[in-house]
Amino acid sequence: MRVLIYGAGQLAKMMYLAGAPLGIQVQAVDVASGKILDPETKQPMQLSIAEAIEEADYLSVEFEHVPEALLHEAELSGKLLPSMRAILTGADRIREKTLLDKLDIANSPYHVITKVEQLDQAIEELGEQLIIKSSRDGYDGYGQWRLQSKEQLAELKDALSSLNLQKVPLIAEKMIPFEREVSMVAVRSRDGSMSFYPLAENLHYRGQLHVSVAPALKVSEELQKQAEQAATKLGDELDYVGVLAVEFFQVGEQLLVNEIAPRVHNSGHWTQQGADTCQFENHLRAICDLPVGDTSATRCAAMVNIIGVSGFNRDMLRIPGCHLHWYRKEAREKRKMGHINLCASSYEELGNAMLALSEYLPIAQFPKLKSSVQQLLKKQ
Amino acid sequence: MRVLIYGAGQLAKMMYLAGAPLGIQVQAVDVASGKILDPETKQPMQLSIAEAIEEADYLSVEFEHVPEALLHEAELSGKLLPSMRAILTGADRIREKTLLDKLDIANSPYHVITKVEQLDQAIEELGEQLIIKSSRDGYDGYGQWRLQSKEQLAELKDALSSLNLQKVPLIAEKMIPFEREVSMVAVRSRDGSMSFYPLAENLHYRGQLHVSVAPALKVSEELQKQAEQAATKLGDELDYVGVLAVEFFQVGEQLLVNEIAPRVHNSGHWTQQGADTCQFENHLRAICDLPVGDTSATRCAAMVNIIGVSGFNRDMLRIPGCHLHWYRKEAREKRKMGHINLCASSYEELGNAMLALSEYLPIAQFPKLKSSVQQLLKKQ
Repeated sequence: MRVLIYGAGQLAKMMYLAGAPLGIQVQAVDVASGKILDPETKQPMQLSIAEAIEEADYLSVEFEHVPEALLHEAELSGKLLPSMRAILTGADRIREKTLLDKLDIANSPYHVITKVEQLDQAIEELGEQLIIKSSRDGYDGYGQWRLQSKEQLAELKDALSSLNLQKVPLIAEKMIPFEREVSMVAVRSRDGSMSFYPLAENLHYRGQLHVSVAPALKVSEELQKQAEQAATKLGDELDYVGVLAVEFFQVGEQLLVNEIAPRVHNSGHWTQQGADTCQFENHLRAICDLPVGDTSATRCAAMVNIIGVSGFNRDMLRIPGCHLHWYRKEAREKRKMGHINLCASSYEELGNAMLALSEYLPIAQFPKLKSSVQQLLKKQ
Repeated sequence: MRVLIYGAGQLAKMMYLAGAPLGIQVQAVDVASGKILDPETKQPMQLSIAEAIEEADYLSVEFEHVPEALLHEAELSGKLLPSMRAILTGADRIREKTLLDKLDIANSPYHVITKVEQLDQAIEELGEQLIIKSSRDGYDGYGQWRLQSKEQLAELKDALSSLNLQKVPLIAEKMIPFEREVSMVAVRSRDGSMSFYPLAENLHYRGQLHVSVAPALKVSEELQKQAEQAATKLGDELDYVGVLAVEFFQVGEQLLVNEIAPRVHNSGHWTQQGADTCQFENHLRAICDLPVGDTSATRCAAMVNIIGVSGFNRDMLRIPGCHLHWYRKEAREKRKMGHINLCASSYEELGNAMLALSEYLPIAQFPKLKSSVQQLLKKQ
């Protein structure tokens, strides 16, 4: 069985490693160069894209921002899972919002901005506290602006004036005073059946995921159900196959969808050590029409992203249940260089492990780790 | 970090997959051809052995039967772990027995045979029920003969007459009426500290490991300690670094060493899904001087070898906690083609999973799976 993944970063690499034991060979397309790479060694393979598509049993993506020409070619092969439509929905906030509204899935109120002047109307409708997001290609905090009050409006308009909003409109979203962010990683099979990992709680810093804890504490059965229902509606509507991630804001006992990711997701990395079958294996199982593996958590887990640093202190591996996933990339500011999964049999143990880990990580890159322990592990 | 493994089979492959997340690149030497291979794809790399040794930080082995000339070259580099002495001890039953006796570690009484006539003396000393084993290159039931009574002696002598016993002597061992076979997978660090996985119980069939269950049931604290002490004595004497496996016969509350394997071991494959850190990762952590990961079992697990069949029924992945490790080798009789790890939160659940699995596996290749469930999971 062979699967070709569009995108040759860490997600393709982790799918490669998860597929190998099942006899699934994963190859990756570097979407910038069009080269086919071994996802682990990054060595180019002597194959054109057309040949790789021909030889593959299935095609999939590691991220939604794949050039449309490439997606078209993939879709034409009849092997692309999830479908181009699902991928494009995750790649475009306007499509995404439209779909959520159509399916009656709660999300934060918004206004589409194709001219900066429309910001006045947005403020009138949604209030003066807004988050402005690029409708496409915006991720990890890039292409986002905040309006805290009307006084900043002129400055904001100025900042946005150079953008071509006809080509890539913006979405102005009402800033919701949410209690926390949680995410659902779901798996949909070819037969339409769905499996769900328990909700994870996520802490962001400067627009990037910083820490996830799973299963999230203080999750009522109803809350988990709400998330599962949203994922099910989306999955059914998109005739989705594979892993689908949905990020939510929690407001009281209500979940508002923040974002949909038509792929394996950073907030699901904890499943590598904390669940029976990890999201990477389950994505491959689903698209290859193999039975989806058990999605229940076997332990409580915390995932900590390693961002922007070129190395790690090996001694942190002394912490019981500490597992490193190092991507072997060149260090750049804000770049995800790896992640650490911490596992424990109780949240108290997990909290101690997180505190122990914070001693090994430079405070500049991990400003929130210590404080997040208290926040994330506060019991009801 | 780069590690070169002598041997390019499934053990090297699983070390490759376990090392990748830590940023450890594993390459393999095919010891027959001398080629350097990517352990996962089996693609040859454009490197000579000398270059691969030069570029590697450490060298290790996936099996003990590496040609001595290659081992010498490896040892000379100063990067080989465990040492050549440790590897050769595992490769030669006479060295092994001599070491066990020297360290006062219980093992079954034996007699070295360099001429077939010495069998008479062996019978006199040890009784007429003997297992005759080649002292070198014998594994998976090859190079083994059984003597049940004196009547078979002439026939046995005849069968052995073509062997060069001066070159490769035999060991005649007293057949011990043991209750079961258990094995210890231990990890020794560069600083001499040791970690131990819980004992696994092993079922063999025609000389090959068939099923392991871990943690083995009915293991008293004293029994686990006995096994740990034997591994510690061996580890200290050999100044061992890495994973060391020791197979035992259990007779009452006494353990007799059956075999030492200076490497990751088939009876430790359950650790991939059943322990916090698997044996493959811990072998690499130990030789790369990284802290050894937690060796405790997180669940109860059964490992079932897939032997001699060219494919598998994908539906078995429906069984909760069922994980496939498929080696992508050409099928041959008695060849290990892959293994399945079953995991559960209780032995009862595990037994049900094993019974469910037996429905998917051809009875000819898995004659003992059903019966082994009862045998292995019988409570005290």
